[in-house]
Amino acid sequence: MKLKDIGEFGFIDRVKTLCQITKKGIIKAIGDDCAVYKGGGEDKAILFTTDMLVENVHFLLDRITPFELGYKTLAVNLSDIAAMGGKPLNAFLSIAVPERITVKFLDELYAGIMSLGRRYHVNVLGGDTTGSKNDLVLNIALTGEAKESSLLYRGGAQAGDKIYVNGYLGESAAGLEVLIKDVDLDETVKKYLVKTHLLPEVYIAEGAFLAETGDVTSCIDVSDGISSDLGHICRESGCGALLYEKDLPVSDELKVFAETTKKKPLDIILSGGEDYKLLFTVRNNKSDALEKIFQNKFGRPLFCLGEIMTGKDIFLRNRGGEERPIKASGWDHF
Amino acid sequence: MKLKDIGEFGFIDRVKTLCQITKKGIIKAIGDDCAVYKGGGEDKAILFTTDMLVENVHFLLDRITPFELGYKTLAVNLSDIAAMGGKPLNAFLSIAVPERITVKFLDELYAGIMSLGRRYHVNVLGGDTTGSKNDLVLNIALTGEAKESSLLYRGGAQAGDKIYVNGYLGESAAGLEVLIKDVDLDETVKKYLVKTHLLPEVYIAEGAFLAETGDVTSCIDVSDGISSDLGHICRESGCGALLYEKDLPVSDELKVFAETTKKKPLDIILSGGEDYKLLFTVRNNKSDALEKIFQNKFGRPLFCLGEIMTGKDIFLRNRGGEERPIKASGWDHF
Repeated sequence: MKLKDIGEFGFIDRVKTLCQITKKGIIKAIGDDCAVYKGGGEDKAILFTTDMLVENVHFLLDRITPFELGYKTLAVNLSDIAAMGGKPLNAFLSIAVPERITVKFLDELYAGIMSLGRRYHVNVLGGDTTGSKNDLVLNIALTGEAKESSLLYRGGAQAGDKIYVNGYLGESAAGLEVLIKDVDLDETVKKYLVKTHLLPEVYIAEGAFLAETGDVTSCIDVSDGISSDLGHICRESGCGALLYEKDLPVSDELKVFAETTKKKPLDIILSGGEDYKLLFTVRNNKSDALEKIFQNKFGRPLFCLGEIMTGKDIFLRNRGGEERPIKASGWDHF
Repeated sequence: MKLKDIGEFGFIDRVKTLCQITKKGIIKAIGDDCAVYKGGGEDKAILFTTDMLVENVHFLLDRITPFELGYKTLAVNLSDIAAMGGKPLNAFLSIAVPERITVKFLDELYAGIMSLGRRYHVNVLGGDTTGSKNDLVLNIALTGEAKESSLLYRGGAQAGDKIYVNGYLGESAAGLEVLIKDVDLDETVKKYLVKTHLLPEVYIAEGAFLAETGDVTSCIDVSDGISSDLGHICRESGCGALLYEKDLPVSDELKVFAETTKKKPLDIILSGGEDYKLLFTVRNNKSDALEKIFQNKFGRPLFCLGEIMTGKDIFLRNRGGEERPIKASGWDHF
């Protein structure tokens, strides 16, 4: 049996079973954006996340600069800390380096990591450097901290909660297509889309704010497309969801891209990966107030794109009012 | 400029410069077996280490079972915690999996990790699973804890200190050669040597004991051969060393291997990698007592193989009493 037969998430379930040890102090093991365990001190939790980026799977070296690659490797890890409402602390970089990689390349890669790291006072405290016969492989392990009582998990959403995202979706997937295919688009639009793919924003302050409100019932970062990531929230929370097509946040740039490539923005949004926005749920009676405070605090809107339902399936209501079930169609690594 | 031009340790020095952020609570960043930062609570330090194993660089899949590979990936990380005198806590496995790898392979890999993990109450709390176009790549990040006041560092050795190792050297390098070449040896000897290479012992209790004595001035685990690893101790401590050839611990099995392959045990010991024994220095006037207590407590001897000197070079005194400088000749990944 190959991994593709059970899929990435089937495999993760399997790992959960293989790795069971009951141990004091572990709050959350495998199955959320970060692992969580008790830190020293009242209400203090330690967060831990790690992400591996593999050449020719996650990036093509002729389509990304070393600076961008460094930035992105840290960004995807920071995004996991943001999704728990935590504050990042220390990073550790393991890197397998093929012979063709130059010292200049690595200098720029570290500059990319540190340009983002400095912004969040995250230092690279260590790691491992080794050779590689084929691909360049990067792994960042990142620690963080948070108040245990205000942590955001994937589980916790309840029927009636509103579903929000803090920015446009689908742009990173469009940017990836612009990067690897010859798409005939205005240069400004191209640059914008490619930038969302290569240098994704990170929402540490936003995640910490959402955690502090006490009204956010679940949260995840959108790394595999919302059909897949909302699926995680539903599965962990034991609920279903209804999305409104009319409310999905589509940027003007994505509209232009979709017209040019004859795709539907809807399809790009549901299954496009690597947006790294925060997807979260809010108690129904608190959502209006939270929208306003968020807009005031961060100068950007939240987008309400649906609501949590009983059941376990995700439905989409189209502009005509018809509802159809949607399946997780995001990125699976196998 | 390629990495091989500046070498693994030249590169690590470069990374130290690239990644400087002054930050409260960081006790030791890049440059020891683990990074160390202040934990919650009086005299509590958090340890962090990470090691990446790459197919065709660190292992050949037709020469190692998935169980052994899992065991070894955790063992090399545990050994870094042992060398600081710490207690391991939680592990995180990132794995890049080519299509040819089966689910059964991964089940056995996790079984290997957990067989060792259970012994030290180390759980795999999370990680990342992704695809790979070419090589299987494994990265374990491991946390640990220790009393800050009794941590063992590479720096700290002083002229006059005795140099010790807690077991035979060179066997792992011999085991690797048996694995990949056709060496005509007794099957029992072969098995023994191969086992030291594939399933190295880990010395958590020994490291913790050495840290508690207060008489151990520096420590490192032997991963790149003692000429290289003692070099790290000398460099970090600002001292030199004198090794006595007659006192280097050579097992009977290594003698047989050396005779058969027409090699000198000395050369294998100085530059052979992956022994994962603890190499440490002890205050001269405390060394006899420590040897006795260690033997009583662990039922195995310590081997005193030299002493720390002023200066910065490492010399070897041969059986005839002549001294010659030796250079670091261990494993460099580039």
